[in-house]
Amino acid sequence: MNPKALFNISYGLYIVTSKNGDNINGQTANALIQVTAEPPALAIGLNNKNLTNEYIKKSKVFVVSILSQDAPLNMIGQFGFKSGRDTDKFENINHKQGKTGAPIILDNTLAYLEAKVTHEMDVGTHTIFVGEIVESDVLKDGKPMTYAYYHQVKRGTTPKTAPTYQKEEIKPASSTRYKCFICGYIYDQEKGDPDGGIAPGTPFEDIPDTWTCPTCGASKDQFKKV
Amino acid sequence: MNPKALFNISYGLYIVTSKNGDNINGQTANALIQVTAEPPALAIGLNNKNLTNEYIKKSKVFVVSILSQDAPLNMIGQFGFKSGRDTDKFENINHKQGKTGAPIILDNTLAYLEAKVTHEMDVGTHTIFVGEIVESDVLKDGKPMTYAYYHQVKRGTTPKTAPTYQKEEIKPASSTRYKCFICGYIYDQEKGDPDGGIAPGTPFEDIPDTWTCPTCGASKDQFKKV
Repeated sequence: MNPKALFNISYGLYIVTSKNGDNINGQTANALIQVTAEPPALAIGLNNKNLTNEYIKKSKVFVVSILSQDAPLNMIGQFGFKSGRDTDKFENINHKQGKTGAPIILDNTLAYLEAKVTHEMDVGTHTIFVGEIVESDVLKDGKPMTYAYYHQVKRGTTPKTAPTYQKEEIKPASSTRYKCFICGYIYDQEKGDPDGGIAPGTPFEDIPDTWTCPTCGASKDQFKKV
Repeated sequence: MNPKALFNISYGLYIVTSKNGDNINGQTANALIQVTAEPPALAIGLNNKNLTNEYIKKSKVFVVSILSQDAPLNMIGQFGFKSGRDTDKFENINHKQGKTGAPIILDNTLAYLEAKVTHEMDVGTHTIFVGEIVESDVLKDGKPMTYAYYHQVKRGTTPKTAPTYQKEEIKPASSTRYKCFICGYIYDQEKGDPDGGIAPGTPFEDIPDTWTCPTCGASKDQFKKV
């Protein structure tokens, strides 16, 4: 078996949100498909350890916000590498309450889909939720963020709880690279971190100490040369 | 509800095959995700009317062949717009028997994944099959075909049995267009049909009568000016 075969599956990148009473939470997700046309329904796979999974099981609703290609890494990291058990993921994120009561992300979102769960299936570490779409709209024109773009162009990393997590991720070769030991993000001097205000070519030593990992928010001292 | 929101979900394009005793069949599919990492497992949504769905329910195995971006429309159409009940879809298609007994497509395939079904869930018109991967390999390097590329660049159409089928598909504007009334494919003079040997700029009237619809194989007299 060659695990690299799996890298050829194509995905988008989404923030999936839900609610539990007055609480809201959300997480990044890639494992989303439309599964029927009549009625229009979605299927999404989420890790059983994640708080959003727990909220969907309780409230039976979820919202998918479809990210645009220009969504910054730190926004994706805020929803992907942190837990809503420890942090308010919606701090500094524009959002509104949807018809289902779950939040719709407004920043860097092309379109959203609100769904009521009709079926769920536990498949081991993850659950597949199937939801009929009860509301949807397009917020702006643009290219959707794809999982390939996130990895290849934005050089994003994958949380351990994702269905697509691989123990050894393939990193691009580079001579001046520093790795975040919290999430695995690589700072590459040649590319910098334009989303975080660091121009391409900036040596790691010259980055201000206030800079944080664009993916998980770890401080600069969590990085080591690799 | 705005159905255009659904157009922002990203997919790849695959041929999913299965077997039933000595018979084999396959179909194009886009609704595929990896759903767990340990063990590596896939989920795929297939229409309950399709023969491949029937074969998977019986044999509990399926193979996903991941198409490359240069796969021709007529190959995708052969597996997407015809039924294995009426035609031998594997005619002129190189393939080999996989470990599961289901066929692996060798033409225009970047990688394949063989799976044994562990869970299935009927969700109305479609069934979601979850399968643990028992064998996989990469056959060649290249870009995977995405659903967006198939529609926007290759101008492919969607079968009525697909989970993503829309009654009114959005067509690019053009002055000299002919529509296939079998599958909805649009011949656009400006773009021609390079995969079928018709150069860009060729008027529809000048196309040889032996030419057939690149998507579904219908004859030239099934086209009408639109």
